[in-house]
Amino acid sequence: MTDREHDLLSIDLLTYDSAGLIPAVIQQHDTGEVLMVAYMNRESLAETLETGRTWFWSRSRNKFWMKGEESGHTQDVLEILYDCDADTLLVKVNQNGPGACHTGQRTCFYRRLYPDAADLSRSVDDE
Amino acid sequence: MTDREHDLLSIDLLTYDSAGLIPAVIQQHDTGEVLMVAYMNRESLAETLETGRTWFWSRSRNKFWMKGEESGHTQDVLEILYDCDADTLLVKVNQNGPGACHTGQRTCFYRRLYPDAADLSRSVDDE
Repeated sequence: MTDREHDLLSIDLLTYDSAGLIPAVIQQHDTGEVLMVAYMNRESLAETLETGRTWFWSRSRNKFWMKGEESGHTQDVLEILYDCDADTLLVKVNQNGPGACHTGQRTCFYRRLYPDAADLSRSVDDE
Repeated sequence: MTDREHDLLSIDLLTYDSAGLIPAVIQQHDTGEVLMVAYMNRESLAETLETGRTWFWSRSRNKFWMKGEESGHTQDVLEILYDCDADTLLVKVNQNGPGACHTGQRTCFYRRLYPDAADLSRSVDDE
């Protein structure tokens, strides 16, 4: 089997939702930071495997996009894992540039829901 | 504002999909391992905030469930972050018991899609 045939077989192992999408958790390979979560479909996953860069499907813009195609902050793919249900991907990458988030932050997960700021200030007050 | 009022306000900050769900990436707080991805809705998130344990909504079984309710392998919640679109959660936990996966594995992401086993064996052969 060629590498290309194997890659296509791998893509068909996975379970996609009714829109043909699978969520992909993007993690910085060495620090373990979760950088972002985005959606792939068969075509963007094939492109990811072929190019070694992350390609996604944008649900809001209804188009393929390569992470960093405008900002230059691309992601080099080191490893792709899939979960026990085969319906979610974990993509280990090396993030190029300052970060993954379009806001300029290192990671898209830069805001805290819990514990909230009030909880934190109470903890400090307690010390 | 009481803690309870603040928590309910936080829940309403988020964006849910058409089924009222939001994906939650569950990460071991100290090692950075991504343990699993599951779905929450407003009610399971409220229960998570109230109890400090992870509660989800099962799309296949159409019911609430607490992680570890049968296995005892519960997850203690340390921090919840949300992303720039406010449509995905990152929940930092301490996993109790041997692991998060119902297969007995530490993490649900225990299988590799890429690079495949053939690639790995070729790398070994090359050494």
